[in-house]
Amino acid sequence: VTAPAATSPDPTLLHELQTPAAVVDLDRLAYNVDRMAAYAAVHGLALRPHVKTHKSPRVAAEQIRSGATGVTCATVREAEVMSEVTDDVFVAYPVIGRAKLERLMRLPPSVRLIVAVDSADANDELAAAASAAGREVRVRVELDVGMRRVGVAGPEAAVALAQEVAGTRGLLFDGVTFYPGHIRQAQAEQGDDLARLSASLGTVLAALERAGLPARSVSGGSTPAAWRMHEIHGLTEVRPGTYVYNDRTTVAVGACAWDDCAFTVLATVVSTSVAGQAVIDAGTKALAREPMPGAADQGWGALLDRPEVTVMRMSEEHGVLDLSQTSWKPEVGDVVRVVPNHVCVAQHLFDEVVGARGRVVETRWAVAARGR
Amino acid sequence: VTAPAATSPDPTLLHELQTPAAVVDLDRLAYNVDRMAAYAAVHGLALRPHVKTHKSPRVAAEQIRSGATGVTCATVREAEVMSEVTDDVFVAYPVIGRAKLERLMRLPPSVRLIVAVDSADANDELAAAASAAGREVRVRVELDVGMRRVGVAGPEAAVALAQEVAGTRGLLFDGVTFYPGHIRQAQAEQGDDLARLSASLGTVLAALERAGLPARSVSGGSTPAAWRMHEIHGLTEVRPGTYVYNDRTTVAVGACAWDDCAFTVLATVVSTSVAGQAVIDAGTKALAREPMPGAADQGWGALLDRPEVTVMRMSEEHGVLDLSQTSWKPEVGDVVRVVPNHVCVAQHLFDEVVGARGRVVETRWAVAARGR
Repeated sequence: VTAPAATSPDPTLLHELQTPAAVVDLDRLAYNVDRMAAYAAVHGLALRPHVKTHKSPRVAAEQIRSGATGVTCATVREAEVMSEVTDDVFVAYPVIGRAKLERLMRLPPSVRLIVAVDSADANDELAAAASAAGREVRVRVELDVGMRRVGVAGPEAAVALAQEVAGTRGLLFDGVTFYPGHIRQAQAEQGDDLARLSASLGTVLAALERAGLPARSVSGGSTPAAWRMHEIHGLTEVRPGTYVYNDRTTVAVGACAWDDCAFTVLATVVSTSVAGQAVIDAGTKALAREPMPGAADQGWGALLDRPEVTVMRMSEEHGVLDLSQTSWKPEVGDVVRVVPNHVCVAQHLFDEVVGARGRVVETRWAVAARGR
Repeated sequence: VTAPAATSPDPTLLHELQTPAAVVDLDRLAYNVDRMAAYAAVHGLALRPHVKTHKSPRVAAEQIRSGATGVTCATVREAEVMSEVTDDVFVAYPVIGRAKLERLMRLPPSVRLIVAVDSADANDELAAAASAAGREVRVRVELDVGMRRVGVAGPEAAVALAQEVAGTRGLLFDGVTFYPGHIRQAQAEQGDDLARLSASLGTVLAALERAGLPARSVSGGSTPAAWRMHEIHGLTEVRPGTYVYNDRTTVAVGACAWDDCAFTVLATVVSTSVAGQAVIDAGTKALAREPMPGAADQGWGALLDRPEVTVMRMSEEHGVLDLSQTSWKPEVGDVVRVVPNHVCVAQHLFDEVVGARGRVVETRWAVAARGR
């Protein structure tokens, strides 16, 4: 991607923005989107990105354009907003409660809706709403593959729930879904983890076959383990989210390089009055207090252009930069870019994202699927 | 406060709301507001609540009505929104950057604006903006009294900055401000902490007197140490924020009772498929990942009606309830109320708050000062 000429005679530059501001490097975004699309294509996997990371139709549209088959959502709000740019929406979250289900059923009729369930209760509620709306819904049975969050465990429970789905009028059994959030790229034992996952998934898929309910879709995947998801036998679809923006954690687990971090929080140095540190105007309400995996005391973010400088403490509107590892002498008014530890939670703290190429502001878009 | 008769023939009940939702118990809110106003009045302290906790003109108006002299803000956005309900606004944060300062100077002329500074740079920027706008601004010198975040330390630095302020055309030296965020109600050594704080503050106030710049305002205070702030010698004003809503941390540090928690996140049980736990639809994007002070492993929130049940793990949209200490057997669809660890950060994750009396929804208001 080459940077086009600026279209305005007097473009806004990053350091002129009011801070804190959420900034996305458009070149890095394009690279990240294309790279994952190529990975999925090479391995014959459908790519259905999770939109929780960006919550923006603008970014989803780029993912679709580069080859994604549809999107993955966690909330009804995300599904509503994303139906503006795609007709293929997977809600990978048990939708419970009549009002929410009614909203889901009011998605445009052109939307091919897929919903995950992990209980007969969720299945029954979904069926009632689908029936009332006269809508056909595809259903994937959520499996717990070791994260112990949601999902049924083992072949018997999976077959029982699949039979429940298949026997419910208005619902179509589409396959299985799982989130291997406990498996991360850099772990030494990852090869074993993926082999174990393949084996246990294989017993579920075989049991479904024997029961006459073969899984058409086998959907899994995450950014931390993204580049090796093809090693999971039987997988048909991947659902990474974080890869569009990346963050400090994605770098730490080995799933991207520092220069692949597309999202930063622009902040201003507001105080240097306490020796050995500088205070920026981005704290927990702009960066989110999300720890790095594994070790404590790694701070809450690091400067894009000086990764040796970390945010060592935060209050709501203050971030305290640790200057012990740098020769940089910040002054009040200096503008910095902070790579957050966990971008999905940080971007959710902003209503708007600024798209920049280099130091030039090129566009802005709403984080439209924020809220409920 | 007695509950009025419901005004609608068919009121919405809490458990009918879509979740996650931010809910404020109106009776508890009124009690909390009145109690702090009474404390300040009894001790002859001006009360200038920090609005970061609620970011809502509706709540600020109740604080003003019960006797607050004005409000404290951290962001320009908060100052803009709060100027709808009060003419007395203190921005207790160094405002750096021309665009932000210009916005501040565009507050209605009726607003008596006070700004904190902790550096000559901040003072100069403020003076330039005030001069350009032809606006008089009161300035308080920010002191570091031990939290090591922002502020100047010691009498010499305080006097030097006060002289800088007093010598700047358009700025009026109003006094000093500090945030004793490191002092908490339940600490055994708190008496000593407050005595030490009084002593070091005393040297600053005496030095200012000697320099011919007596501090008209001496502003401090926080919710954790709120009920003993009158023990700080020379204090004229307190700025607690959290007390309107309270949270699990405020209870833990001994500054309120569990039944004083006015703010909860309403959530729905969406999965019980993994044994020993239940999953609710409130995770880091609704509760915020804010640890309890002191000890790890205390979870990220607790149920209002069953405080023995804590949120032991979170993802973005999932909260995992620990059922090991309860005989309660939750079912999919059950609605619960979660008291977050840190309400100021949790409320910022919502655009709207529901005001309820008992189980009845009475009103809704916008978290209007969210955003930038």
